[in-house]
Amino acid sequence: MNFSSDNWAGAAPQIIDALAREAGRFGGAYGTSDTDARVEKRFCEIFDRNVAVFLVGTGTAANGLALAAAGRPGGIVFCHTDSHVEVDECGGVALQADGARLRLIAGRHGKMRPQDLAAAIEAFPHGHIHAGQLTAVSLTQASEAGTVYTIDEIRALSDIAHQHGLAVHMDGARIANALVHLGATAAEMTWKAGIDLVSFGGTKNGCIAAEALVVFNPDLAAQLPYLRMRAGHLFSKSRFMAAQFEAYFADGLWLKLAGHANAMAERLRGGLEATDRARLAWPTPANEVFAVFSKGLAGRLRAAGASFHEWRFSEKDSLGLADDEDLFRLIASFATRADDIDRFLEVLAQ
Amino acid sequence: MNFSSDNWAGAAPQIIDALAREAGRFGGAYGTSDTDARVEKRFCEIFDRNVAVFLVGTGTAANGLALAAAGRPGGIVFCHTDSHVEVDECGGVALQADGARLRLIAGRHGKMRPQDLAAAIEAFPHGHIHAGQLTAVSLTQASEAGTVYTIDEIRALSDIAHQHGLAVHMDGARIANALVHLGATAAEMTWKAGIDLVSFGGTKNGCIAAEALVVFNPDLAAQLPYLRMRAGHLFSKSRFMAAQFEAYFADGLWLKLAGHANAMAERLRGGLEATDRARLAWPTPANEVFAVFSKGLAGRLRAAGASFHEWRFSEKDSLGLADDEDLFRLIASFATRADDIDRFLEVLAQ
Amino acid sequence: MNFSSDNWAGAAPQIIDALAREAGRFGGAYGTSDTDARVEKRFCEIFDRNVAVFLVGTGTAANGLALAAAGRPGGIVFCHTDSHVEVDECGGVALQADGARLRLIAGRHGKMRPQDLAAAIEAFPHGHIHAGQLTAVSLTQASEAGTVYTIDEIRALSDIAHQHGLAVHMDGARIANALVHLGATAAEMTWKAGIDLVSFGGTKNGCIAAEALVVFNPDLAAQLPYLRMRAGHLFSKSRFMAAQFEAYFADGLWLKLAGHANAMAERLRGGLEATDRARLAWPTPANEVFAVFSKGLAGRLRAAGASFHEWRFSEKDSLGLADDEDLFRLIASFATRADDIDRFLEVLAQ
Amino acid sequence: MNFSSDNWAGAAPQIIDALAREAGRFGGAYGTSDTDARVEKRFCEIFDRNVAVFLVGTGTAANGLALAAAGRPGGIVFCHTDSHVEVDECGGVALQADGARLRLIAGRHGKMRPQDLAAAIEAFPHGHIHAGQLTAVSLTQASEAGTVYTIDEIRALSDIAHQHGLAVHMDGARIANALVHLGATAAEMTWKAGIDLVSFGGTKNGCIAAEALVVFNPDLAAQLPYLRMRAGHLFSKSRFMAAQFEAYFADGLWLKLAGHANAMAERLRGGLEATDRARLAWPTPANEVFAVFSKGLAGRLRAAGASFHEWRFSEKDSLGLADDEDLFRLIASFATRADDIDRFLEVLAQ
Repeated sequence: MNFSSDNWAGAAPQIIDALAREAGRFGGAYGTSDTDARVEKRFCEIFDRNVAVFLVGTGTAANGLALAAAGRPGGIVFCHTDSHVEVDECGGVALQADGARLRLIAGRHGKMRPQDLAAAIEAFPHGHIHAGQLTAVSLTQASEAGTVYTIDEIRALSDIAHQHGLAVHMDGARIANALVHLGATAAEMTWKAGIDLVSFGGTKNGCIAAEALVVFNPDLAAQLPYLRMRAGHLFSKSRFMAAQFEAYFADGLWLKLAGHANAMAERLRGGLEATDRARLAWPTPANEVFAVFSKGLAGRLRAAGASFHEWRFSEKDSLGLADDEDLFRLIASFATRADDIDRFLEVLAQ
Repeated sequence: MNFSSDNWAGAAPQIIDALAREAGRFGGAYGTSDTDARVEKRFCEIFDRNVAVFLVGTGTAANGLALAAAGRPGGIVFCHTDSHVEVDECGGVALQADGARLRLIAGRHGKMRPQDLAAAIEAFPHGHIHAGQLTAVSLTQASEAGTVYTIDEIRALSDIAHQHGLAVHMDGARIANALVHLGATAAEMTWKAGIDLVSFGGTKNGCIAAEALVVFNPDLAAQLPYLRMRAGHLFSKSRFMAAQFEAYFADGLWLKLAGHANAMAERLRGGLEATDRARLAWPTPANEVFAVFSKGLAGRLRAAGASFHEWRFSEKDSLGLADDEDLFRLIASFATRADDIDRFLEVLAQ
Repeated sequence: MNFSSDNWAGAAPQIIDALAREAGRFGGAYGTSDTDARVEKRFCEIFDRNVAVFLVGTGTAANGLALAAAGRPGGIVFCHTDSHVEVDECGGVALQADGARLRLIAGRHGKMRPQDLAAAIEAFPHGHIHAGQLTAVSLTQASEAGTVYTIDEIRALSDIAHQHGLAVHMDGARIANALVHLGATAAEMTWKAGIDLVSFGGTKNGCIAAEALVVFNPDLAAQLPYLRMRAGHLFSKSRFMAAQFEAYFADGLWLKLAGHANAMAERLRGGLEATDRARLAWPTPANEVFAVFSKGLAGRLRAAGASFHEWRFSEKDSLGLADDEDLFRLIASFATRADDIDRFLEVLAQ
Repeated sequence: MNFSSDNWAGAAPQIIDALAREAGRFGGAYGTSDTDARVEKRFCEIFDRNVAVFLVGTGTAANGLALAAAGRPGGIVFCHTDSHVEVDECGGVALQADGARLRLIAGRHGKMRPQDLAAAIEAFPHGHIHAGQLTAVSLTQASEAGTVYTIDEIRALSDIAHQHGLAVHMDGARIANALVHLGATAAEMTWKAGIDLVSFGGTKNGCIAAEALVVFNPDLAAQLPYLRMRAGHLFSKSRFMAAQFEAYFADGLWLKLAGHANAMAERLRGGLEATDRARLAWPTPANEVFAVFSKGLAGRLRAAGASFHEWRFSEKDSLGLADDEDLFRLIASFATRADDIDRFLEVLAQ
């Protein structure tokens, strides 16, 4: 009953098998191997166009490097108040992107609204050098609140950004979960909707450490080889990261794993909606569930072996929590078993 | 016949087995798992004292973070002219360590001499704020030239550094190869000889991506959790890195792997010394071999399937190369087979 | 009728006289002159204790260096939403302070409330390395809204900050105007109320370029010589900056100049309160006036020779502006003449 | 008898007069004043073409910003071993230019030779991302050794740099002294010889703080407004810097001041050549004199009131100093009097 995070899960057997195969042979270091070349081609197929791919070790690296690639001195990036780049990366964007700053846009359920982005951009004193310069918008798909932007919402945000010359970055730590929910192709949800760069996460969905910065706009890719190298994120045995992605994409494994995680979360949501001992904090369609229940119940669930986190969130205060209640995050992953969900719901119902 | 680099080798089966075991279970993210805890304890045993351990993805990360930990504004680090931090990390130290600069000390065969370090430190205008401030010495063991500092040499360098208040960092990308050669314990070659921080490499010696920044001086460890996090080098599934190290240390695997690599290099050196078609550029005791032979011979070896690199090095001009000669680097790894060495020597002899 | 800013004013004759005297002699460069030594001693007298003084060229430099001195990796500084460090320095704090981030606290009339600061600090996940670490609070005195913190308010903010180990920085670009208003000593308004570092501005109050970073906590001063030097803010002819300060402090000139500016602003406020053609946006006690009037009237005033700025401010939307109204900032300086105020009010009344 | 440095001199009366005139009026802040506009036009006349001008407070700022403007991630700048950017700016280039690194080129008498620059550039592994990327060459005119590059030498260095896509920066802290010596126009010595950016110094030659970054290549100027602002080097009362330059250029004052300084140095050189108690370390044509004499004599000169510095320099060891000798630097400025030179020579002769 581990719902702490999808990065508490292990790894899919196919991923380990790929590592084992790769282990038995020699191959070019620093991204020059055949495996790297194959997986770069595979990314082009997945995105149905030429893309530049930069494998890195963590999502924090991918995000920071993406915003560095789009950066300029005094640069400012718009993102949601609760976004990972703001809350969970210890200033990683400022490190990679020469001191870039994040400007926060509030929004319900982890999503920025186009009108709020437009207002923020328009209110910015463009050309006023004291203020700095706007360089990018970063949106998270699926969001930190477990919600998913529709393709129209992404396009609306991208259009506004592009009208003002800003690049658009998608933090896709859970991109597969979002894609499965939308039933869209990777192309439709990204560059066809105006995205310029994607942090494409594999780690949370069954890999051990496999993240890719995928760049659609070749201008934005020019400096990335150097940015990645100096950040220590070009791995000498990069081909072991590539091998993970190769297995991840083979036979649609990545979408199957994400589909399972989403289904497990749905099973949990169904159970929570059917009880009066807990309630959903807000609706989520992918593999994250945000629920409100009593701290006593939380204790009881944990005593029975469940693991999950209380959650800080900008919206928490507006949820009308009772004194003995708290907001909890429960995440399903590729490794979550239906049995675990059912047992959790049983304990909850007792 | 792949002698390109020890990071062109794959991974030891025991490492993959450990990943497979870890894959089947849940575990704390971001270094909080039992596996992480066990491996931290293991590092204390390996070093025979309490140490702080920070797992990271690459040696470039470990080096940059180590020198950031020892850093101060306007900071200057002494290192060898050919050191990895200077030549191969794209400015990574400056990124992590707030613009720290490297001051180069020349030295034969990749090693700094104590008297040259002393002279450089003494010549520095201490307290002259225009010049900056000296913060650390970084030495590489085994060195980029494949040589190994004796323990007395390390102690001599450390003593000089400490007399002036500088921290001492060891870039140990090939630390196991050096240890095996010296027949010393990890403690003897590091903190007992005055080292304050070690970039402890596992990747080149049979892991897929396992590097550890090991800190002996607790003062230097205080900011590292934050430095590592913002650099994107705290891995969510850190326990897969920890698992590699656990297998690496089990039953002395790491020393066996390094011992094999060293022995294979020795076999190659023996063969090269026995022929007049090539000569050793300088003596090396561990797993790297630097040789001089004709470009024609290089072409013939490659045509027969051998792979290795021409090598840039500050000392190259003093080697008295003939016009048709070049300097080549040949590296043996845990995966090098005696057959490969022998075949290489046969082709060379034809 | 120039009310654009106090930095549109020229310089007091005494300041120029001091420069002329200094021009005629040789003196030590980079802060080693007798003039520098005398003015450092003068700062100790002004603040009634030993202080470390770092002369720099601009307030942006003083602020960035102050927050760098208090910085740590992944550092976060609390400041008001409209503070100069956030709005007007193009990311200068991030540059000087190794990527430090600003977290904004809203507050009426440009001032943070102690309870809001306390709530923000308490809500921060201390020790959660993903979030970074809180390093400082920066407050502006007089504030960007022309208001002035009382000594009790400063102490309340400082106490909260210190309880959590944060340093407290005062951006004193208009510190003299605030001091005159409060009738307090420099000591009372700063270190006696818990301030650790002050950006002490002279430029806006009659100097040509004279800013000082004054540090009360010796620990925070240790790295500043290097931080200032690498920022290019240790001036070779520093003694011309020192000479300005010497003249500035002589015979209480600085307080006289600020007193005049405040009085001129008060004359303007009186006039605005007496008319129904304009209203004060909020009360201000020092040399800045924020007023609401019609854009048509603004045009008429400008046509008559007045100069002043429309003003962006977080509070603007809550002022209930009519469609044809705007928010304007009018600043009096040491150089403002009563005649100018009176003429402005006359044009306004016509 | 103050020969410590040209920045120990005061300021020319015309400079102070200009400040006094500017003090009496209001004017646009942050470079928007009429005075700023006039002086920008004046720079275009001086350089006989359109230029972008950025006034800053110090040469360290101008240098760092110039190399930031030409920078790219992992950037490397070639400069002389003894250059100011390397030796005297506490890592300022790394701060402003996102961690850029300096690679040192040795050369007699403070000058890089074209063949050495060519060799260094050609030896660099272009496109090898581990190594970083070459972005600029920075040369100092007059050099730190008091020598002056001929126009042909500048063109030779620039041509080599441009062939490889590197920008060329001139650190012109003593540009006027070099121009007067060469009898060339500012255009001839800079952009006509291939220079892309100039740190144009006024401070050492009679101003109090007036430095300008002059950019010939518009592409390189694009980000400078932001780079300067975030560095705290856009001065609110920028017009007082502009006023200094206006007076500096009026009636050729700048060239007269530099001509005087050079002539005084020549007088000193003549005297030193005529005695056997001292010798010139190497020939210099502008306002700096490097001499070798005994420490005892140095003590006697100082006892008589002379001030000057022992000098560190890469070439010092090759000067064949006797045990009781040292290398001394003596600098003449606009304020040096012939009497002082003569008295110095008299004391020396006694």
